Amino acid sequence: MKALYFDGKKLETREMEKPAPGPGEVLIRVTLAGVCRTDVEIVKGYMGFTGIPGHEFVGLVRESEDKSWIGKRVVGEINLPCTECSFCGGGLSRHCPNRQTLGIYKKDGAFAEYVTLPLSNLHEVPDDLSDEAAVFVEPAAACFEILEQTSVRDKRVLVLGDGKLGILVARVLKGQGVKRLVLAGKHPDKMALLEKDKIETAPVGDVVKTIAPDPFARFDMVVEATGRPDGFETAMSLVRPRGEILQKTTAADRVPADLSRLVVDEISVIGSRCGPFPPALSALASGEIKTGDLIGGAFPLEDGAEAVKEASRPGALKILIRVGEE
Amino acid sequence: MKALYFDGKKLETREMEKPAPGPGEVLIRVTLAGVCRTDVEIVKGYMGFTGIPGHEFVGLVRESEDKSWIGKRVVGEINLPCTECSFCGGGLSRHCPNRQTLGIYKKDGAFAEYVTLPLSNLHEVPDDLSDEAAVFVEPAAACFEILEQTSVRDKRVLVLGDGKLGILVARVLKGQGVKRLVLAGKHPDKMALLEKDKIETAPVGDVVKTIAPDPFARFDMVVEATGRPDGFETAMSLVRPRGEILQKTTAADRVPADLSRLVVDEISVIGSRCGPFPPALSALASGEIKTGDLIGGAFPLEDGAEAVKEASRPGALKILIRVGEE
Repeated sequence: MKALYFDGKKLETREMEKPAPGPGEVLIRVTLAGVCRTDVEIVKGYMGFTGIPGHEFVGLVRESEDKSWIGKRVVGEINLPCTECSFCGGGLSRHCPNRQTLGIYKKDGAFAEYVTLPLSNLHEVPDDLSDEAAVFVEPAAACFEILEQTSVRDKRVLVLGDGKLGILVARVLKGQGVKRLVLAGKHPDKMALLEKDKIETAPVGDVVKTIAPDPFARFDMVVEATGRPDGFETAMSLVRPRGEILQKTTAADRVPADLSRLVVDEISVIGSRCGPFPPALSALASGEIKTGDLIGGAFPLEDGAEAVKEASRPGALKILIRVGEE
Repeated sequence: MKALYFDGKKLETREMEKPAPGPGEVLIRVTLAGVCRTDVEIVKGYMGFTGIPGHEFVGLVRESEDKSWIGKRVVGEINLPCTECSFCGGGLSRHCPNRQTLGIYKKDGAFAEYVTLPLSNLHEVPDDLSDEAAVFVEPAAACFEILEQTSVRDKRVLVLGDGKLGILVARVLKGQGVKRLVLAGKHPDKMALLEKDKIETAPVGDVVKTIAPDPFARFDMVVEATGRPDGFETAMSLVRPRGEILQKTTAADRVPADLSRLVVDEISVIGSRCGPFPPALSALASGEIKTGDLIGGAFPLEDGAEAVKEASRPGALKILIRVGEE
């Protein structure tokens, strides 16, 4: 099969052995995949990963012990827990210390014609959900994770960052009974995408200038989705006493944090990563969350390295890798 | 009256005007006060405070519009909210941006023969609670704040730091249905105080060596009460994925934080400051929480500067300032 392979130095599409499903696993023909910020980081050395990257995908089940799954169109959760440890038994399987992570850690990913995953990771894609929308299930699930961790109802929420994640977070939170929702960003063209959703946007500089000095104006919750190391300090300046910061950015280096302010104002910081697929699937299928305007381009698998390069461009929208049916 | 005064440079007991209660305020004769870490910091320049420090005290009401309070033995909450802003109206009066704070910010404190406070800040001290125990109500309330912010029931909790606050936190949490409770410290003599409470203790170095490398052994919750800037990173290494850090230490400088770990492991960090007086009062009055062994010495008000100096000694127990009745 064809696959995009990263050997630790170079990313290139090559001919490789088709993967064999392990016990409990199915073989999936990837039809469409999405390039994530994490893939860009992997090519820079993140997690020391070598192999096939890619964890956002939609595909068709080709081989499965449970024959009823064969032919089904699916998306897949990216964490492969051991299923046997106390974390897995205690409802924390997404945090299993022995887990592999699709295309990120010890498990070949979806930038390939075929990928394997445990059947228990799969979710069937409803007929009315296009491949181009289904490929957003994984990042949308990461947005729904916020709702698993806290409530946004009746809260004044600021989303910090107008990247794909920030925009998706704003669209997910919009329907959840927030009192006020503002996205603060730096790119007028990105923020313009939220106009049709009737989501308020503002330049982050203006927000900091007007909100930070006034404790009464600060937000009940700030979702930090800037992807920048200084995003956390900006978030701290914009959240009210006893407010919450939902931290999405994984900064590579240690970031200076004003813990004194955190204590005096009794702020909570909640780290937020992968999330539940079912609500993301249904919100995308119902059209409640739009993603069409977030697609910046599509490349064939042969040009996968080009796709990742394009995705690493500052301000890039979602870049897709088309694999197609055999 | 006699009072301990800090002019921004020097701390000394001097003769001063007796304070006049403002509207809604009462005049209290201070009988006993406690020196807190914050007082030590104030003398180093914290908050730029000048005036009379001191916010842990017990005293007798001498003047009050409500005559029924005269003669009562009281302790007092330290935040003086404006009572009129949206924070005060919204249950966040301890975080009122317009607040004064007793002996810390814009309000003379209790290292004096007399102090004034709004009547609404006062709590009557039960007869069976000695002055020496009542003076611990304010720091004990800060421990009960943890229980207002989260539940410790059935959790494996690590208290980091064997200072007065750490020991008091451990004693408060002990009775709250924790699954396991360990205090990690550096001073064998301090940790020995917890033996009679049957609270498990361990040297922090040993805990880091055995717990940090093993995700399954890490704690559900870590209370960071080290008073040290590096305490936060130690706490991060000892908390399990999806676990909580209750941050008590107010580090003066920005502290490097591994936000990537915070996000990947979905850890929550909750800043925790002042707390509710009523549960602290009743736990001290019932003898459920002991404090007698936490007292390191007592000085007369004349020697107040000496008392603060003694309290600043590393590893010092609680230093009291005796004022006495007129």
